[in-house]
Amino acid sequence: MSSVSVPPPKCLQKTFVAPRRHMFGPGPSNVPPRILAAGAEPIIGHMHPEMLEIMSDIKSGIQYAFQTQNNMTIAVSGTGHTAMECAIFNAVEPGEGVLTAVNGIWGERAAEMAERIGAKVNSIVTTAGGVFTSEEIDQALAKHKPVLFFLTHGESSTGVVHPLDGIGDICHKHNCLFLVDCVASMGGAPLYMDKQGIDILYSGSQKVLNAPPGTAPISFSERACQKVFNRKTKPVSFFLDMTWLANYWGCDGKPARIYHHTAPVSAFYSLRESLAILAEQGLENSWQRHREVAEYFHEGLENMGLKLFVKNKNARLPTVTTIVAPPGYDWKEITSYIMKNHNLEISGGLGPSVGQVLRVGLMGGNSSKASVDMVLEALRDALRYCHKSKV
Amino acid sequence: MSSVSVPPPKCLQKTFVAPRRHMFGPGPSNVPPRILAAGAEPIIGHMHPEMLEIMSDIKSGIQYAFQTQNNMTIAVSGTGHTAMECAIFNAVEPGEGVLTAVNGIWGERAAEMAERIGAKVNSIVTTAGGVFTSEEIDQALAKHKPVLFFLTHGESSTGVVHPLDGIGDICHKHNCLFLVDCVASMGGAPLYMDKQGIDILYSGSQKVLNAPPGTAPISFSERACQKVFNRKTKPVSFFLDMTWLANYWGCDGKPARIYHHTAPVSAFYSLRESLAILAEQGLENSWQRHREVAEYFHEGLENMGLKLFVKNKNARLPTVTTIVAPPGYDWKEITSYIMKNHNLEISGGLGPSVGQVLRVGLMGGNSSKASVDMVLEALRDALRYCHKSKV
Repeated sequence: MSSVSVPPPKCLQKTFVAPRRHMFGPGPSNVPPRILAAGAEPIIGHMHPEMLEIMSDIKSGIQYAFQTQNNMTIAVSGTGHTAMECAIFNAVEPGEGVLTAVNGIWGERAAEMAERIGAKVNSIVTTAGGVFTSEEIDQALAKHKPVLFFLTHGESSTGVVHPLDGIGDICHKHNCLFLVDCVASMGGAPLYMDKQGIDILYSGSQKVLNAPPGTAPISFSERACQKVFNRKTKPVSFFLDMTWLANYWGCDGKPARIYHHTAPVSAFYSLRESLAILAEQGLENSWQRHREVAEYFHEGLENMGLKLFVKNKNARLPTVTTIVAPPGYDWKEITSYIMKNHNLEISGGLGPSVGQVLRVGLMGGNSSKASVDMVLEALRDALRYCHKSKV
Repeated sequence: MSSVSVPPPKCLQKTFVAPRRHMFGPGPSNVPPRILAAGAEPIIGHMHPEMLEIMSDIKSGIQYAFQTQNNMTIAVSGTGHTAMECAIFNAVEPGEGVLTAVNGIWGERAAEMAERIGAKVNSIVTTAGGVFTSEEIDQALAKHKPVLFFLTHGESSTGVVHPLDGIGDICHKHNCLFLVDCVASMGGAPLYMDKQGIDILYSGSQKVLNAPPGTAPISFSERACQKVFNRKTKPVSFFLDMTWLANYWGCDGKPARIYHHTAPVSAFYSLRESLAILAEQGLENSWQRHREVAEYFHEGLENMGLKLFVKNKNARLPTVTTIVAPPGYDWKEITSYIMKNHNLEISGGLGPSVGQVLRVGLMGGNSSKASVDMVLEALRDALRYCHKSKV
C-alpha cells in the first residue's frame, strides 16, 4: 500500500516548450544561443578549480563593464534585488542614516530595504521622468548627514539616465558613500565607477548582458570596504555577508577558500559568456550602438506622432524608452495586441509611471535598427486596430 | 581617443568548456541532459502567463515532493541558504526565541542566521553523527520556550538522517513552529510534511532533484502562515518577504500579481523539469532506490575494510554517505587522486566532520549500483596508490 497521500501532479506530465518571443520589454532580454549553450554545459562543483577560474574571469569582466579596478568585485548569487540588499545590508548599520533619491521605483525600494534593517531613511523626491541637480543632492546630504546615498543610474520605470559626474565628490565631501544602481544601464550607457567616485555599484544579468536573470554584478570601492569590513554589528544576512563572499571570491587575500554557499554554477557559466561577448564587442561600441539605436527609435516614434515621456533629450535612457501612453487608448490593449499579433513584448509603466507610459527595452543583442523597425511596425499596427475612445 | 581606462580582459577570450565529471560529492549532482536542455529554452518574461503556469507546475511538484497540501508552497529565487534565511526571516521577530538542533553544520548556520536578526538563540548539541531523542527535544523546548525549532532531516556534513516522527507534535505542544531542512534528503529519504507536522520545510535544487543549484523549494503550514502573516515587524529582507512572494506565486488569493523581483526564468525551467522527472519515477520508488543503492554501497565499503561514520544503521542518510577517513592516509590525497585518475568527485568532511570523513553523495540519477561500483573501484585504487604513513 502506498504511504504517500499527495499523488504526482498531472500538470507535470506535459512537456514544456518555451514560446519564442521578441523580448523588448524592460527585461529580461532575449538570451542569444551562445549564452544559452554556455548555461547548458555540464555541472561542476562550486569549489572546483575550473569554477574558481570562471569566477575570476567574471570578476575581470565586471571590472571592465563597471570601469573599475576595485579588488572587491563579485557576482551575487541572486537577482538585482539581491545585489541591492547586499549593498545596503553590508554598508549600513542599524541607526545609521541613508538618503535615497527617488525619481522612480528603485529609490523607493532602496528606502524600504534600508528601513527594514533599522536605518534612518530620508528621501529626496522628484517627479517621474525628472532628475536631481547637484545642488539638491548637496543640500540634502548636508541636512541629513547620511552614511549612504542611493541613486539610480538607469531608471527603468521612468526611462531616465541620471547624470553621475561630480556626485561622488559631493558625497565624499559629506563623508557619505555613493551607491548606484546600474541594473538597466550597465553596458548601454557610459559609466565609469572609479572616475565617477562611485563606492558601491551593482547591476543585473538580464538586461544589456543578455544572460538569464539570476546573477548580479556588484563592486565595492576601497572607501566602501573601509566601512563594510569595520562594522560593529554583523549584517543581517549570513548569505550576503561580504566577509564571507569576499573569501569565496578570492578577494580577501587569504589562500584558503571556505565553503559559504553553493553558487548557481550554470548561471555563472552564462554570466561569464555574456561578459565575454561584451568584452569582444567593446564597451564603448556598445554604448555608442545603444545611443544610436535609441535616437533612431525616438525619431521614429516622434514621426508617428507619439511623445517621449522624458522631455530632456540628454536624460533619456538608451536602453529603456518610455513613451507617453497614447491618449484615448487603453495601454493594456496595446501591449496585449502587440504580444498576440507580433509575438513581441513591450510593457506598461511601473511604480510612479503606471498608466502613464509604454516601456520598450532594446538591450544588448536586441539593440539594433531591425528591432526598432519591428517595434515601430507593431505600434503602428496597434494604433490602427486597437479601440480608440471618442475624445 | 578611448575614454575607458580598464581594458577588456584577455581571460575572457578563451572559450570555456566544462569538464565532464562524475559528481559524487554531497552536491551539486550531475544534471541530466533533459534538465540542461530545459534550462536552455529561450527566455520569456517573469510575469508572462506561461511563466505563471510553470510556477504553478513547480508548486504542484514541490507539494508532491514534500507530501504536503500547503497552499503556501513556492520556490525561492536563490540557493538553499536563501531558503534557510527566508524561513527564519519570515518566522521570527527580533527578541523571539529560537532553538536549533546542532548535529552538524546546518544547525550552527541556522543559529547564526537567527542571531543576526536579533533572535534569542539556544542550541542543543550532539556529537557529529548522532541524533537527538524526543525527550531531549521536549526538555529543551520546555526550558527555552522558543517560537521556532530548527532540525536538519538530512545532515550532509555528517551523513545522518534524523527521525522526524512525533517531533512536530512535541513542538506544537510547546506552541513552537517546527522548521526542517531537507536540502540533502528530499526525494531520497521518506518525508511527509503534513503527516509529520512540519511547519516550514525547505530544500535545494541541486541534490536529488539533479537541477543546477540556484532555486530552493519551501513550504509553510497553516500554523506557520498564522505567524508569518501576523507579524508586528516587517522581515529584514524585502526580497524574501513572504507577503510579496505569496502574491508573486499566486498563493495569497488576490487576482493581481504585483511585480516583486525578476525570477531566474531559466532556473525555473530546469527546476520544473527536475520535478517532472521525480513525479514520473514516483517518490516512493525514488526513496526505495536510494535506500537499496545506499545499502549496496555500505556493504561494499565494509567488505573493503572501510568503516561507516554513522554507527546506527537506521540513522544513515541514503543520499550522502560518510566514511571514516581511512587511518594512515591523508584524506585530501585520496579525494585528489580519485578526481585526477577517475574523473570523479568525492569530498572530505564539512564543519564538525572535517578531517574525520570522506563524503560520497549518490543522488537522483547518480543513485545507481553502477555508480556505486565506480566509487568502490576508485576507492580501492586510491587506497592502493596513495601514500600510507607507517603507523
